[in-house]
Amino acid sequence: MTNPTAAMLVIGDEILSGRTRDSNLHHLAGELTRRGLKLVEARVVGDDHAAIVAAVNDLRVRVDHLFTSGGIGPTHDDITADAVAAAFGVPIGVREDARAILAAHYARAGLEFNAARQRMARIPEGAALIDNPISAAPGFTLGNVHVMAGVPAIFEAMLASVLATVAGGAPLLSQSLQVNRGEGEIAEAFGALAAEFPDLSMGSYPFIRNGAHGTNLVIRGTDGARLDAAMMRLAALFGTAGT
Amino acid sequence: MTNPTAAMLVIGDEILSGRTRDSNLHHLAGELTRRGLKLVEARVVGDDHAAIVAAVNDLRVRVDHLFTSGGIGPTHDDITADAVAAAFGVPIGVREDARAILAAHYARAGLEFNAARQRMARIPEGAALIDNPISAAPGFTLGNVHVMAGVPAIFEAMLASVLATVAGGAPLLSQSLQVNRGEGEIAEAFGALAAEFPDLSMGSYPFIRNGAHGTNLVIRGTDGARLDAAMMRLAALFGTAGT
Repeated sequence: MTNPTAAMLVIGDEILSGRTRDSNLHHLAGELTRRGLKLVEARVVGDDHAAIVAAVNDLRVRVDHLFTSGGIGPTHDDITADAVAAAFGVPIGVREDARAILAAHYARAGLEFNAARQRMARIPEGAALIDNPISAAPGFTLGNVHVMAGVPAIFEAMLASVLATVAGGAPLLSQSLQVNRGEGEIAEAFGALAAEFPDLSMGSYPFIRNGAHGTNLVIRGTDGARLDAAMMRLAALFGTAGT
Repeated sequence: MTNPTAAMLVIGDEILSGRTRDSNLHHLAGELTRRGLKLVEARVVGDDHAAIVAAVNDLRVRVDHLFTSGGIGPTHDDITADAVAAAFGVPIGVREDARAILAAHYARAGLEFNAARQRMARIPEGAALIDNPISAAPGFTLGNVHVMAGVPAIFEAMLASVLATVAGGAPLLSQSLQVNRGEGEIAEAFGALAAEFPDLSMGSYPFIRNGAHGTNLVIRGTDGARLDAAMMRLAALFGTAGT
């Protein structure tokens, strides 16, 4: 009955410098929730070997699946594959099947399969390749760590392949009620309701619209009947002020 | 000459479930870069006491400043203040100045200053308040940890107050060149250039537009003259294919 757990590691100086806004975390979070995997933590680290190794080893032992994005391209700052190999203590080198995929891709495109591009065929020993239908250079799965590209279109395509092979759990359902009152108005009754339904997770998300305070009340859980029961109680408590 | 370091901790189930897309990390990253603070890591954890305590204690000892967002409202799932107090091993209780700020705010608004709202006056011992010009409920700074709201408008206002008091470093400058070639075309020469300028950070960020591959080449550093020198070399290498 417990849902499998997951963590995410986003790798790239460009996220931490503010140059790029990460969108892969939000995409992954939605996909995992739909499949009943519980995302328990996400981290962002820079293009730093020691930082990647430490984060991979800290996270992979605590979850069923660790998903990484970024740092698997052909340039000098793409160091994720080496760091993941180091984290597992396994060798890394050019793998023939990955090399063949890339060679065929560049031959079709009429582009030189140069040394930088051959670097993308370096895969840690024991890993399984993740298909890249967009730009060929594969990701890989090593143990419970799924190593994927940072470019959103490629990340999303790789993730779809990986999730087809991953056992999910009961989908995490959610229902919500929007009320035209600030959190402080509803906090006491909402907290009491949450205490009555310890098997569900209840959260409140305040917003300000045209200067007026409002709150989205969200109930999450895997048991649809319990969720319905809690929502009926919620509607009875706050529904008249809802939208 | 070294820049002060920072980390961020985003707190909230709604980010990890995919319901909400975090925008505070991207805002913080840009503000820190402008002020010459180096963001070295970001984490997202859920509304879980043990997870918040562990992340605060893991991060605060490794950086000059830790910025947190989320979990300081009036509802049962707002547990950040208690978790930060626990992380520091200090007591937490209602503080008179915070209580007075909130009491005045709700009196002006004609709203009841009820028990839930009074909870927002609970501040760990030894903390300094962070002004909230939008909804009054203060954030706080304890040691090197700056605890702020998750609602973006409030986070941004609180951050502006905090950054006015934080010593920055030499601004982290960046220049970039967009080339109409894939990363694999430029990787070798770009990597060689990066090796020639070890005091600068060089990154390449591929994109796909209308089916064609392109790359943004970015050089970052604090010494403007060195940055200019590297950019001149970069333009000579790749400029003819640029936009």
